[in-house]
Amino acid sequence: MTLLALDFGGTKLAAGIVNAGSREWLGYERALSPANANAHTDLEIMRSLIHSLLQGAKPTAIGVSFGGPVDATTGKVRLSHHVPGWENVPLQDLLMEDFGVPTRVDNDANVAALGEHRFGAGQGYDSLFYVTVSTGVGGGWILNGKPWRGTEGMAGEIGHMVVDPSGPVCLCGKRGCVERLASGPYMARDAREVLENEPPRRKESREVRGEVLRGLVGDNLDLITGKVLSEAAATGDDLARELLYRAGWALGMGIGNVANLMNPQRFVLGGGVTKAGESFWDIVRKVARETALPEVMNLEIVPAALGDDAPLWGAVALADDIAVDCNT
Amino acid sequence: MTLLALDFGGTKLAAGIVNAGSREWLGYERALSPANANAHTDLEIMRSLIHSLLQGAKPTAIGVSFGGPVDATTGKVRLSHHVPGWENVPLQDLLMEDFGVPTRVDNDANVAALGEHRFGAGQGYDSLFYVTVSTGVGGGWILNGKPWRGTEGMAGEIGHMVVDPSGPVCLCGKRGCVERLASGPYMARDAREVLENEPPRRKESREVRGEVLRGLVGDNLDLITGKVLSEAAATGDDLARELLYRAGWALGMGIGNVANLMNPQRFVLGGGVTKAGESFWDIVRKVARETALPEVMNLEIVPAALGDDAPLWGAVALADDIAVDCNT
Repeated sequence: MTLLALDFGGTKLAAGIVNAGSREWLGYERALSPANANAHTDLEIMRSLIHSLLQGAKPTAIGVSFGGPVDATTGKVRLSHHVPGWENVPLQDLLMEDFGVPTRVDNDANVAALGEHRFGAGQGYDSLFYVTVSTGVGGGWILNGKPWRGTEGMAGEIGHMVVDPSGPVCLCGKRGCVERLASGPYMARDAREVLENEPPRRKESREVRGEVLRGLVGDNLDLITGKVLSEAAATGDDLARELLYRAGWALGMGIGNVANLMNPQRFVLGGGVTKAGESFWDIVRKVARETALPEVMNLEIVPAALGDDAPLWGAVALADDIAVDCNT
Repeated sequence: MTLLALDFGGTKLAAGIVNAGSREWLGYERALSPANANAHTDLEIMRSLIHSLLQGAKPTAIGVSFGGPVDATTGKVRLSHHVPGWENVPLQDLLMEDFGVPTRVDNDANVAALGEHRFGAGQGYDSLFYVTVSTGVGGGWILNGKPWRGTEGMAGEIGHMVVDPSGPVCLCGKRGCVERLASGPYMARDAREVLENEPPRRKESREVRGEVLRGLVGDNLDLITGKVLSEAAATGDDLARELLYRAGWALGMGIGNVANLMNPQRFVLGGGVTKAGESFWDIVRKVARETALPEVMNLEIVPAALGDDAPLWGAVALADDIAVDCNT
């Protein structure tokens, strides 16, 4: 039984094939989504990755992770926030027509949650909430050992939980969403704004807020990213530390609220921002602990184990499940 | 098959018997919990209610709603926030010893959610979140048609979701919890504090904030309750309206966050505060809609149908389920 796993990320495309039950890829291909990509070009690139992988062979089933909201019951993409042209694309039907095998499509956070549950940091846990903190903040549920997608496939959106109603405005129109405070691009933007309004001071003061950060990007503030912020924070930059503290606070607050609301066995955190080091994790855990009720004693918050491959391994699990369901 | 349903509320005790499948009580008894009640006196009063109901007959099963955290797997009460002496009382075991029939105990919010699901505003809905806004704010989940209690039975605690981190301090130690802003006693306390610091002005100004409220309690501020506040708001009292607006805002924010996180089919709201009138409901619905993502289109927020009887009818459902499970 050969399973084909596809990952339509916002900026990259990946495909892998694997024998059911194996943890090693028989083949793996990836490509960057070009800057001017649209749904059509993404699909063409993915098709060429698949053909190079399969060499004409037919997989038993296909699982797909898509970076954006998906109606998981029909496998129809609602839209992508990164790539235009994905509005209402029936991705599941398209792939089933192309390859003639059972196919299942779900959004990346749900799929990554399934990947971590089946193959990663969530193995053996019946209930878990997976959170990815990266260019966006998303989440996916496993409850009673199965994905919980909600009535419209929208469950898991911790990124747009409001944790500070007087905080900065988010793209969604609300203030102080977790994503507004904790995602890489927003943190980078906030850092840039502070530095633009605070021209570098000279030697008279010993410590200058954001100086390390400025140095890392050679004064070209457009080069600041979440990753650069993490590096600056690790080197002791005050501004970077403040922003990462606020991100950890927002994430901890969100997780504590979720713990009170759902009381899952485990929280699994992935995505670039979670690589910001132990002090970031300390804040997340501390604030989550303070936000959760004392009776919620079970508050395990652990790093994801599969890293960037979580969606692709989750897509393997999706394909495996549908192959079993369809008895193919 | 006769089912015995018990409700240990914070201030009242109730018991009912019913034939399985029927919606009419064969017998129903209730009593107030005395001001100096403890676990022992509550149990004694409940036993006398039961004996008066059963007259020596034996029920097929017993379902129990308890007003406080319960370990639903063992039926052991953790504590009551209202009545002392309930710490670690094995209520399920005690009742099984007393009556020799299968018994199940769960906390009131979970049980009321089950009651609304089986007999009330949640009939036919596979996923719902029940919220009670009363002396406290609690919630209970139905997911995939079954109660979701979380790994330690603590799921549903929307009351201690932080919606305003710069808000007033809650008993739990955090600031701006939903319960701190929306529960009856806290609203009453906030009204008292405002009025104590704002002595009544005389005729010179036409409208005086809180004047209606003061009138309703004959200047005895200790008599202000959530109910009195609702009445004052309905009569146009500005202070009462402000506090109810803030309560509706907090509840709407909490519900919107939950919609993003779990995307259930329906929210069912009960408890005294939800009887505050249409303008309160309008705020709750408006803020919930603004807080939920636009892709979360399903955001039904409806009043509970069973009122104060939701826990007792939920206890009937608990008893029914355990009778079926035990094949008695």
